Amino acid sequence: MDIHALDTPVAIVDLDRLEANIVKLQHYLDEVRIANRPHVKTHKIPEIAHMQVQTGAVGITCQKIGEAEVMADAGIKDIFIPYNIVGQPKLERLMHLAQRVNLSVTADSEFTVRGLSAAAQQKGVELPVLVEFDTGMRRCGVQAPREAAELARTIARSPGLCFGGLMTYPCNENTDPFVRQTKALLEPDGMGIDRVSGGGTPGMWQAHTHAQVTEYRAGMYAYGDRRVLRSGALQLDDVAFNIITTVVSRPTAERGILDGGSKTFSSDTVGLEGYGLILEYPDAHFYAMSEEHGNVDFSHCSRTPEIGERVTVIPNHCCVVSNLFDQVVGVRQGKVELTWSVAARGKLK
Amino acid sequence: MDIHALDTPVAIVDLDRLEANIVKLQHYLDEVRIANRPHVKTHKIPEIAHMQVQTGAVGITCQKIGEAEVMADAGIKDIFIPYNIVGQPKLERLMHLAQRVNLSVTADSEFTVRGLSAAAQQKGVELPVLVEFDTGMRRCGVQAPREAAELARTIARSPGLCFGGLMTYPCNENTDPFVRQTKALLEPDGMGIDRVSGGGTPGMWQAHTHAQVTEYRAGMYAYGDRRVLRSGALQLDDVAFNIITTVVSRPTAERGILDGGSKTFSSDTVGLEGYGLILEYPDAHFYAMSEEHGNVDFSHCSRTPEIGERVTVIPNHCCVVSNLFDQVVGVRQGKVELTWSVAARGKLK
Repeated sequence: MDIHALDTPVAIVDLDRLEANIVKLQHYLDEVRIANRPHVKTHKIPEIAHMQVQTGAVGITCQKIGEAEVMADAGIKDIFIPYNIVGQPKLERLMHLAQRVNLSVTADSEFTVRGLSAAAQQKGVELPVLVEFDTGMRRCGVQAPREAAELARTIARSPGLCFGGLMTYPCNENTDPFVRQTKALLEPDGMGIDRVSGGGTPGMWQAHTHAQVTEYRAGMYAYGDRRVLRSGALQLDDVAFNIITTVVSRPTAERGILDGGSKTFSSDTVGLEGYGLILEYPDAHFYAMSEEHGNVDFSHCSRTPEIGERVTVIPNHCCVVSNLFDQVVGVRQGKVELTWSVAARGKLK
Repeated sequence: MDIHALDTPVAIVDLDRLEANIVKLQHYLDEVRIANRPHVKTHKIPEIAHMQVQTGAVGITCQKIGEAEVMADAGIKDIFIPYNIVGQPKLERLMHLAQRVNLSVTADSEFTVRGLSAAAQQKGVELPVLVEFDTGMRRCGVQAPREAAELARTIARSPGLCFGGLMTYPCNENTDPFVRQTKALLEPDGMGIDRVSGGGTPGMWQAHTHAQVTEYRAGMYAYGDRRVLRSGALQLDDVAFNIITTVVSRPTAERGILDGGSKTFSSDTVGLEGYGLILEYPDAHFYAMSEEHGNVDFSHCSRTPEIGERVTVIPNHCCVVSNLFDQVVGVRQGKVELTWSVAARGKLK
């Protein structure tokens, strides 16, 4: 089937580019001897996760247990969930998962560690727990090496758990100093830090500059989007993910309305102006959305589209967009090759 | 089951409030003799659509054919799709739908009308088509009464179609003058305008002030959210929809991290500051999100939550949030009564 026969809005994955992106990062991380543990929250598709593992990834990263369950069901054997798992229902699911795959998680508080320990003990599991540290994102994570070392000791003496190392996001100039200071604090206890998990697609080609980092988590590198383009980590010809939409209205000479809005593209601007890059009209300004309509100003374009014309949009943030689609269509040179179910979509728990 | 036993993040519908909201708007519209045609894009749940119809709605509004198909499958008999339906795959589905339910649609261009006419003719359907007009939203819609009248005439003489009236969103001070002028232009042709469909939850209690409006489409009135609260159309005790989350991290004395981010709440700010109102901590500032984390500043609160504590969030925009959940849980006085599948979620086509 030709790509033009697909009804819109439709999410497209260019398979040649996807494969190239996966291979390119793997080769780079192999070369700089950093373990590759891609974050599957970008695509949420077990088939792509398998491609990543077969290309050399040591395992995958999931952000929620529900995503990890889907990936485990599909045969992925090594999963990292860099999240504070809190509450009995989730702890039970987590330990069930730990009995099926090689699982590791993170914690940034004694509260989280206590819950993990009690649940692991009950199931007879030994779960590696990494300490999450904050190097400037101001999300989760302990704030100082002293706290990291203290929590590492707590994990090490907690039944059912073992200290698994350190984790942060993203890697920056604070990463190495934080790790070195924590190492120095743990040395007297005879505790080493074997695994330091960093991440982030925008900075992926600088992974080797963080000497302490042993493992890298990138997600968006597989697809690419406007944010990744802005970072320079991928170029336009690398972007493997886009949304084809149809112009359904031309109410004025300047304005065109697409058949996709915030339910298609999400409202996540990631600090960018506008809601997407229209490949056929790069000077167009996708300036507003409602749920099912995208408002585009074509006044700076040399020509403007007719009603019924299809346009291809690179979204701002591919991860949140793929979460809005039940399926993506894999294409190669304009021909439809396959349809993938976004099997881990909407797994909020 | 008690509401506190539900794992988080979970979408909650307070059934008493939902029922009260549905009844209250129906009574008001009955009183002012305006037909009620609620927009189901807010909830996307056939069971709630049936409640709305049983309470007196003349039918429902859907924004995409996929939503309408779900509602038709569930037994809803009268559906309005105020959208320019463009392209062969959609036109075929639309005409199939027209053979099953009492269907009407809109158009704002000859292009859309030509497509509808050809498809309707082929199926032997007579489809009412309303002309969409723009009274300031700058989305779709013809710009002037002269254009509206011209398109109405085009529809009237198009085989397979009949002129169904006018449609706009939202109702404002331009609505009545536009309709009156269009009526005057059509009078010489002996054409009347029987149906004028307006809408919008924020302005719903002023529906009667738009003398020309015969039908009202409100969606958010059933649930309510922070935007509706801002408009004053509902009060805090009316809001029937919220998300329960868990505090999973307290990295600093001020900051707390919720287990829901942009994949739970969407990034739709609808012009509001912050991403939701936390009922237990009304002075907290939900200032940032990543996909699975919500960052909250509790520094202006008299007390701050512990890790593991559950907090209830009223989102900014209920429609886009309900699209992120596969299910919602219906509760009454703190007890779980039912689970509804968000059956029309993710219907982008």
